[in-house]
Amino acid sequence: MKLTFSPSSPFARKVRICAIELGLIDKIEFIPTTVAPGTPNEKYTHDISPLRKLPALILDDGTVIVDSYVICEYLDDLAGGGKLIPASGIARWKVKSEHAMLQGMLDAMLLCRYESMLRPEAQRWQTWYDDQWDRAWQGFARFEAQPDVLARPLDITQIALTCALGYADFRFPDCGWRNSFPKLAAFYATMSQRPSVQASAPPKA
Amino acid sequence: MKLTFSPSSPFARKVRICAIELGLIDKIEFIPTTVAPGTPNEKYTHDISPLRKLPALILDDGTVIVDSYVICEYLDDLAGGGKLIPASGIARWKVKSEHAMLQGMLDAMLLCRYESMLRPEAQRWQTWYDDQWDRAWQGFARFEAQPDVLARPLDITQIALTCALGYADFRFPDCGWRNSFPKLAAFYATMSQRPSVQASAPPKA
Repeated sequence: MKLTFSPSSPFARKVRICAIELGLIDKIEFIPTTVAPGTPNEKYTHDISPLRKLPALILDDGTVIVDSYVICEYLDDLAGGGKLIPASGIARWKVKSEHAMLQGMLDAMLLCRYESMLRPEAQRWQTWYDDQWDRAWQGFARFEAQPDVLARPLDITQIALTCALGYADFRFPDCGWRNSFPKLAAFYATMSQRPSVQASAPPKA
Repeated sequence: MKLTFSPSSPFARKVRICAIELGLIDKIEFIPTTVAPGTPNEKYTHDISPLRKLPALILDDGTVIVDSYVICEYLDDLAGGGKLIPASGIARWKVKSEHAMLQGMLDAMLLCRYESMLRPEAQRWQTWYDDQWDRAWQGFARFEAQPDVLARPLDITQIALTCALGYADFRFPDCGWRNSFPKLAAFYATMSQRPSVQASAPPKA
């Protein structure tokens, strides 16, 4: 299998952590790829995905699988199923919902990044930035209030939460999330000891 | 169960179509809800979802499930499983990947809508709009080139594709997708005969 990725993509990081934790990392060839809104990339559009997002998984028969969550679930299934995503019952739906929330929080943080770095300065709209940032922030507050989620055996929610907090450190280093969310800070410190989390850390900003 | 929804949300429409096709529509109470980027909604943020997106499913025990795809998969499971999403094998991953692509296409179309209608005129950035629109458009081109996907028994890919094309009609009526994608036009005409598609049609723009 091949995975298109960038070291700075939190979505690709999530897949890398899952692959390591599931013991599948050696089965994946990593293809460094650059995509950015506003920059055409015809080859990626046509060969991989018209969404021009990272990561995408390319199976040995050429089948392309998007997005990062579907890839993680595919890898979990490949590893026997029920490893990082509960196989059945209400726990399955709670974890899938928690993960979808984290996916939306990361989308919101990326929109903030595009608003403040990619968009020409005169075309920036603070109301949009503030609204997107608040989605991520309120989402973190939601997880801060759920210590049971933070203390469970490793799952996709915890991995995605780690990637979201790591992305906050990487792109919004002054946001002060550790002061506002001390339980998340302790959780992140523990997660940061895992080799999978260390190996996938983004480059220095 | 309760579902927060708006008649104009293509994501809520997808859930409604799935619920009708799965025979579960009578088990869901629909809660009309208004959310918009830049408009605070503390109650929705705290009671339902910090992402402030539609739809969200509220189970009888109070558990909130997001996002639209997770809700559809939950409903499919509730109906016995494997109805609109293949239960196993490579077909499962292809459908999940196709759906994720359509989800991304709809996200891109919504970003175009926000860019051209919500954002103050002086802060609009045509490069962003064009890039997001191209993602949706190239996505449609991808499905136009896959007649097997359009001809399968009903599944979540076809339902999401119908919602994306319906959203194009609703919010981008002059985009001319039928001229560019005649196979999608024939597919959409067939899908539009289904009572589930008719019952969930957005209001007149």
